[in-house]
Amino acid sequence: MVDLTPDTVTDAVLAQMADTPDARLREIMTAAVKHLHAFAREVQLTPQEWLMGIAFLTEVGQTCTPSRQETILLSDTLGLSALVNLMHDSTHAHDATDSSLLGPFYRDSSPKLALGDSISSEPDTMPVVFLGQVRDQDGHGIAHASIEVWQTDAHGSYDMQIHGESRMDHRARFEADASGHFHFRTVRPLAYYIPLDGPVGRMVKAQNRHGCRPAHIHFLITAPGHRELVTALYLGDDSYIDSDVVFGVSEALVITPQPDSTTPFPELPAIRYDFTLAQDAGMAASRVGADPSKLMQTAH
Amino acid sequence: MVDLTPDTVTDAVLAQMADTPDARLREIMTAAVKHLHAFAREVQLTPQEWLMGIAFLTEVGQTCTPSRQETILLSDTLGLSALVNLMHDSTHAHDATDSSLLGPFYRDSSPKLALGDSISSEPDTMPVVFLGQVRDQDGHGIAHASIEVWQTDAHGSYDMQIHGESRMDHRARFEADASGHFHFRTVRPLAYYIPLDGPVGRMVKAQNRHGCRPAHIHFLITAPGHRELVTALYLGDDSYIDSDVVFGVSEALVITPQPDSTTPFPELPAIRYDFTLAQDAGMAASRVGADPSKLMQTAH
Repeated sequence: MVDLTPDTVTDAVLAQMADTPDARLREIMTAAVKHLHAFAREVQLTPQEWLMGIAFLTEVGQTCTPSRQETILLSDTLGLSALVNLMHDSTHAHDATDSSLLGPFYRDSSPKLALGDSISSEPDTMPVVFLGQVRDQDGHGIAHASIEVWQTDAHGSYDMQIHGESRMDHRARFEADASGHFHFRTVRPLAYYIPLDGPVGRMVKAQNRHGCRPAHIHFLITAPGHRELVTALYLGDDSYIDSDVVFGVSEALVITPQPDSTTPFPELPAIRYDFTLAQDAGMAASRVGADPSKLMQTAH
Repeated sequence: MVDLTPDTVTDAVLAQMADTPDARLREIMTAAVKHLHAFAREVQLTPQEWLMGIAFLTEVGQTCTPSRQETILLSDTLGLSALVNLMHDSTHAHDATDSSLLGPFYRDSSPKLALGDSISSEPDTMPVVFLGQVRDQDGHGIAHASIEVWQTDAHGSYDMQIHGESRMDHRARFEADASGHFHFRTVRPLAYYIPLDGPVGRMVKAQNRHGCRPAHIHFLITAPGHRELVTALYLGDDSYIDSDVVFGVSEALVITPQPDSTTPFPELPAIRYDFTLAQDAGMAASRVGADPSKLMQTAH
């Protein structure tokens, strides 16, 4: 019998996992155990501290509901979601539009609207028109690409935060025209606090972070033969543009509404942005995120 | 604005956490983010894989109840609980009896029994008598030390697994006599599977691990002025003695029942073991573990 010590216990764990049949699971869990133990050794984690960590992780899981995903929020606020997305982009989609976080407010079944429609039930509060084209890597429009869009209302709240699962607002699905062009009306989204009433919020506050995301509009764009694009566009005049609590902003994704009399809604400020999709690399998921209700089904 | 890349995102996260007022929290979270990101980079974690990880961690939290602590089970099966305990022992209690895992089946309010009583409601199934002394580091008996003991029944189940919170069995609290001696009757515990019907069980099975703990008896021993001792004694003839799924066994904690006609119960096999408590180092918690119902209260 080998007596376990702080120096030998890691190898004992790795030995017990060495027969994992799935090579990728073995690789991931081996690295996870090594880094987890190295972390504990580096900070000389005490039993009392680790019990607090266990209570925290338990509460993160218990806070999840079909309309709230606290575990994704934890991953987002630790920058892990951003890292995983960035690694994936740099490997698989370096010519395409930058991706950004899906976030915890995506839903699978947004209502289908017609081009030009407003996605807001309060269309007169700070209205803007959005115009864009979905293109392939050669710059050609992709006919009939699917565009899902979701954002906060003009007061900084997502529909799920007000209505739970019962009502959708400020989200929709559009189909681009034969040249890949689409446009819709919406309202200016507002910067907002991530949910701060749960364990992740307590962590963020204990770290003296403001807990805000700069105002943004989410997009999920798909077309057959092309890689799904999950991204968001950020309003450049937002005061949190440089300190997003979930590290989603990149410079190429910053937008500013401009007066534009050439649009179908010449009285509205316009946002113009064109999206480039990468060729399909045969990847299934390309985003850290999911409809929270679907993730609960995955888990049970 | 700094554009985030897989190489710069970690520093951006650390910068946002740099104003954490509590220095120890800052130290722990800085190391946690560095190792978490290093892990993701090392294995080039994909969005699809990390979504599976998020669903897994969510389910771990959701599986916890007042009588089941799946997060501790995860920590135990990854060897992290053992590592944290071993580090604590080597720093604070190197002269004392080795500690071992508290595990997920401890309860705060075991019934107080008299010396010699049986802790089992089925005292005739493989009965044994346990005799021990609680001592200080100079070898002197500690008068009236408190001994909490808990174990499986002779079929390998803890009371909580059969009765939930409604009934206690095979657990008790004793008070040592004026010389620190105590004895009680019990039954031979049996090796058992950790709970395999939850997410941690799926992980263990996917790793081709047997999922068993060798038969053991848990002890939590306290006395004023001395450091709490959380340990367990393991039956040496158990076939899992070298491959405990939660890495709790150390050679000094292995016991074997022996015929012994000199005890108050001469017809029973006897286990003799003496415990040495370290001097109180003023530590609050010294164990990764807690009554699951108390940990749920901590979390909410």
